[in-house]
Amino acid sequence: VSTRRFLKGGSEELSRELDGRISAFEVKDCDLAGRTGALKVGSREVMTPALMPVVNPNLLEKGYPLTPFRLKEEFGFDIMITNSYMIRKNPDLSSRALELGLHRLLDFDGIIMTDSGTFQSYVYGGGGKNEVDVDPLEIVEFQRNIGSDIGTILDRFTTPDTDRQRADSDLRETMSRGSLSLEKKGQMELAVPVQGGLHLDLREEAGRLVREMGVRYSPIGGVVPLMESYRYAELVDVIISAKKGLGPSIPAHLFGAGHPMFIPLAVALGCDLFDSASYAKFAKDGRYLTMDRTRHLREMESFPCSCRTCSRMEPKEMLELPPLEREALLAEHNLWSLRAVMGEVRSAIREGTLWELVERSASFHPSLYEAVRHLGDRADFLEDNAPATTRRFMCSDLNLGICRPEFRRYRRSLCKNYRYPDADEMVLVKGTSGLRGTVGSRKLHSSFGRGSWVVVTTPIGPVPSELLDMYPPGQSVLPPIDSLPGEIRNEVENHVKAFSEGWAGPVRSADADSLSDDAVEKAPSGLDLHRIINVSRMQFGRETDLEIDRVLLGEYSDLSLLKERVVLRTSRRTGKVRNVLAVDGDKEEHILSLRAEDGHFTLKLAGGARLHHAGWPYRVTVDSETGEYNAMGYNVFCRFVLSAGECIRPGDEVLVVDPSGSLLAVGQARITGRHMVEGDSGVAVKVREGIKGK
Amino acid sequence: VSTRRFLKGGSEELSRELDGRISAFEVKDCDLAGRTGALKVGSREVMTPALMPVVNPNLLEKGYPLTPFRLKEEFGFDIMITNSYMIRKNPDLSSRALELGLHRLLDFDGIIMTDSGTFQSYVYGGGGKNEVDVDPLEIVEFQRNIGSDIGTILDRFTTPDTDRQRADSDLRETMSRGSLSLEKKGQMELAVPVQGGLHLDLREEAGRLVREMGVRYSPIGGVVPLMESYRYAELVDVIISAKKGLGPSIPAHLFGAGHPMFIPLAVALGCDLFDSASYAKFAKDGRYLTMDRTRHLREMESFPCSCRTCSRMEPKEMLELPPLEREALLAEHNLWSLRAVMGEVRSAIREGTLWELVERSASFHPSLYEAVRHLGDRADFLEDNAPATTRRFMCSDLNLGICRPEFRRYRRSLCKNYRYPDADEMVLVKGTSGLRGTVGSRKLHSSFGRGSWVVVTTPIGPVPSELLDMYPPGQSVLPPIDSLPGEIRNEVENHVKAFSEGWAGPVRSADADSLSDDAVEKAPSGLDLHRIINVSRMQFGRETDLEIDRVLLGEYSDLSLLKERVVLRTSRRTGKVRNVLAVDGDKEEHILSLRAEDGHFTLKLAGGARLHHAGWPYRVTVDSETGEYNAMGYNVFCRFVLSAGECIRPGDEVLVVDPSGSLLAVGQARITGRHMVEGDSGVAVKVREGIKGK
Repeated sequence: VSTRRFLKGGSEELSRELDGRISAFEVKDCDLAGRTGALKVGSREVMTPALMPVVNPNLLEKGYPLTPFRLKEEFGFDIMITNSYMIRKNPDLSSRALELGLHRLLDFDGIIMTDSGTFQSYVYGGGGKNEVDVDPLEIVEFQRNIGSDIGTILDRFTTPDTDRQRADSDLRETMSRGSLSLEKKGQMELAVPVQGGLHLDLREEAGRLVREMGVRYSPIGGVVPLMESYRYAELVDVIISAKKGLGPSIPAHLFGAGHPMFIPLAVALGCDLFDSASYAKFAKDGRYLTMDRTRHLREMESFPCSCRTCSRMEPKEMLELPPLEREALLAEHNLWSLRAVMGEVRSAIREGTLWELVERSASFHPSLYEAVRHLGDRADFLEDNAPATTRRFMCSDLNLGICRPEFRRYRRSLCKNYRYPDADEMVLVKGTSGLRGTVGSRKLHSSFGRGSWVVVTTPIGPVPSELLDMYPPGQSVLPPIDSLPGEIRNEVENHVKAFSEGWAGPVRSADADSLSDDAVEKAPSGLDLHRIINVSRMQFGRETDLEIDRVLLGEYSDLSLLKERVVLRTSRRTGKVRNVLAVDGDKEEHILSLRAEDGHFTLKLAGGARLHHAGWPYRVTVDSETGEYNAMGYNVFCRFVLSAGECIRPGDEVLVVDPSGSLLAVGQARITGRHMVEGDSGVAVKVREGIKGK
Repeated sequence: VSTRRFLKGGSEELSRELDGRISAFEVKDCDLAGRTGALKVGSREVMTPALMPVVNPNLLEKGYPLTPFRLKEEFGFDIMITNSYMIRKNPDLSSRALELGLHRLLDFDGIIMTDSGTFQSYVYGGGGKNEVDVDPLEIVEFQRNIGSDIGTILDRFTTPDTDRQRADSDLRETMSRGSLSLEKKGQMELAVPVQGGLHLDLREEAGRLVREMGVRYSPIGGVVPLMESYRYAELVDVIISAKKGLGPSIPAHLFGAGHPMFIPLAVALGCDLFDSASYAKFAKDGRYLTMDRTRHLREMESFPCSCRTCSRMEPKEMLELPPLEREALLAEHNLWSLRAVMGEVRSAIREGTLWELVERSASFHPSLYEAVRHLGDRADFLEDNAPATTRRFMCSDLNLGICRPEFRRYRRSLCKNYRYPDADEMVLVKGTSGLRGTVGSRKLHSSFGRGSWVVVTTPIGPVPSELLDMYPPGQSVLPPIDSLPGEIRNEVENHVKAFSEGWAGPVRSADADSLSDDAVEKAPSGLDLHRIINVSRMQFGRETDLEIDRVLLGEYSDLSLLKERVVLRTSRRTGKVRNVLAVDGDKEEHILSLRAEDGHFTLKLAGGARLHHAGWPYRVTVDSETGEYNAMGYNVFCRFVLSAGECIRPGDEVLVVDPSGSLLAVGQARITGRHMVEGDSGVAVKVREGIKGK
């Protein structure tokens, strides 16, 4: 269980802290370790994941046509970044910035982030000097004085080839500057980057230190050299370590990820913000940006894009324009392209299809393919963050898909929680075309004799027929098992073997085609009960040793006894089970409802009470004052969460309890347990039923 | 050698045929079996691959906002398709069409294709009747009379489940209607579809019959049921068989491929035209089209697109519009999306990156992944058509990439043509990060003693150091060998074993990291000569048993002897060999130049004369009259080609000869030998040097 280090609610210290809040980061939807959210700074807001165009103030002075005003009004960018070091170096700009403030100077009514010169120290510093001629605290004050929304400390840029000792001392210096800078930030939000080079323990420590310092925005820095040389697999490790330290509540900015090809993967790992100077730089070189790569305008036949710019002309016509006009149009296209990529990423998270986007991005370059495959060895991290259920689950290349949290959770849960039915034989059927389509569950239920228990072999593993509608098998579109790569097919076979091992009865293999179409109504008796038993065990039994079915339905020795204790209400339209009622003496209690969309249960208050009584760990403790509201059916907000089960993932059913441990409500988690505790903005639990009414 | 069935050039019959020509199809660039081209019908022209929006004339009458005029002027579609059967069924429309002509009726100044009612017979016919109430010849005359640019015969729609006998009789009926219809077509171009269901021999025969009938436009029909049920692997077989029969010269239209997810693969197989009603149908259902899939507007968070429509609003705002307005905007986006997809495909062919696009499309759906993998068993077809060289060669997933023509050609050519150097030992070095980067050729040349011959193990196979700059190894970006799937790594190891088998000397394995950086200048003597020998053998020796190096440079017993006969001119800037001159007595003849971009030779006239003398089969026979011009350096056009080597692929160096077999010129093939003979439009050979001057 995660617990807040400082109790919130009521104390003077807290109110001060909350009143002083400048920014808030609220997560909305989650997929893999990625999320959509809203970052609010002062009165301004941006939807994340977001990309901020880099604006060069010197170019602007020279009349660069893509003004910040156009970036927002025409292209829809609500956040931008510029360089305070460059402004400060230019006396004229500097004094006007101090006089007018950054927003008026640049004519931008969105969030303005400023960088501090660290990257310049990397690019121009060289020779081990690695510093620019600016005082670390002065540049923070300067950023504050020109009215930056999010300033950045002058951190030490640690390159990937830096040895551990140097990386460590750089890190201490960065952190020390961080805490001194926090005192100077005033009303500005302050970004403190995570450095540490390729030393993963340092990256994680840096993240943790940043979080404990009370920083509310953190870039992951020093990664440009990795991106420039396509070292994406190492970059994955760097991001994962930084994120472990930072935790889910702090918006993470991948500094310098200008090319969009890595963005889907970075977002899947939990990066929320990106900056790009590439739209302008590439345009200067005559290069045309798309999600998958860049091309030279001169080698293009037609535009692979229908943005406002590309739909007006053909590549040849653009080539013939005067250089400056051509550069401006290319930059416009590049911005449209970046905008579309970010829209695609946000939409994918909302739909639960981020994996598909990551898989697609793997085809952009062998190094990206490698990086996605490398995730297979880092799958724990995805599991720590990924939602408990999604709407859709598609995978084309299982060499990559093997690290999907769904696979691992399902297999582990099946081994740990599944209860064999009381049947005469196990019939193993090979799923012929992925999971959906050929082998439907109804057909399976009906095609074998009363005592036959059908198990379908799928790329996810063995799927007993009563679980075919449950997430993940029920939501999957997967390759047919015969087309799997040898190594993965072996793995599946091992899972089937392991699954059958505890089964004492006979096992028979059967062909899916031999299943008859008729007798749909003759489902073996007890199958629905088995579904209740096993879905509840699989869904609620993750990370606990409780015998969930007995907790919910009471102790029973066999199915016939249980049958008397359970009432199943079926849908009139589909004939499928919808509600589960437990009979306790004369009383019927509605304990569970079965969702059609993912075959999971929603927990009713009566069911929650039973799980609560047994000490089920999916619980969120809220402070007593706001708990009153939750008991009346209002949602739980992060800032009032005192502790939460670490096992909780977005989408999990949870119990809401007061500090004394009494049940207040049941609901669905929106974010992980860790996030509920560390975060202070947004909804933690969507309450469904409270003890004092809905 | 392919030979024209009827000699062209001079005969009365031919001039009549050429004068009567209505359409012309010229291929420009090739990649895999795909190509860009220009389809001209009368005075109108469209760039291919192209997609034609389906226009429903009845909806148009009711005020559908996406008028044909807008399709062309606003969205840039230069070709559309409408249904002549629907026009004819509507008495009012029909009479106006006859009076005004189709172009004025629809207000469309591009190419108009018309369909005939066949698809309606499939959709509404049912019950084995499979006919509509229209006379097959009458509907052709009707299309002619309303001024369609490309009419379509009323063919028999053969569904995938049709048995062979029925498919065969359907096919005969279609062909018989085809030849009768040709007589009625007048100035209209007439499309005769390839049917045959899933019977591949029938598909190929149908293609051949269509071609021999003199048809100049052919749709591949009866495939919608395959696409609707994601049976893409079978669709690949159908297209390949149809294309084998049709040959490369007839533009192929994949009928009803409305969703763009299959388009990259279809184009890679040689499909040139597509039609789509989906932009409008999907919009009616509230569905939003992207290359990879469709989504419901209501589940979208942000638009993954920056088209003129999507850049104006957010999904939520679009959802709130009145239904008709929303439908129109969705249809607009869908059209922009289709336009971008076609632009992407055309650009990819021009750049030689069509494979990358196919590989990306494999991630769109497990069935597409399966279909691309399935290509591995059909790789011969790709090899029959793919260019001899391209600019770039990237592959992320070798499970898919294994069918790339480059892999197969390289491995086969290495086995057949490579000549071992005279060295003390073979040093096997494992390429550590794909092919480029870590193991560069210069470094390799220099790092071992004089007698050591370095061979790099790569995913393509073993690459002797002197071939590291040659296409394909020199253009490749590939995964590191250690990351390859087990089966493919085994295959590579087998290739290395097979390659080393004929080598009698010792073999030593070495680590790439152990190669020293210095002594770049100490390349083993003779290495450049080995490069000349082996590049020429690999490049010119495909499909012939000639000892190419001896043909070009004369018989020699050892390298020191050869050295006296060859002068290598190196580039002053790079120090690399540029020109190869053969010394024959007092005479120095410039026979070859080495191209930097792909490490292949361009053939000079003197080199061509040597190959010609030896009977080298890469020759194109042109008619004697136009041959005069080729001898003066003018390009060879398809319509004057009498015969051409079947081994010729786009990009190959070729000899141009007159009907008596005398050499006229050397040049580079633009298309395959088969295409040169079957086609009658466009450039066949880009002549470099003619015997009568440039």
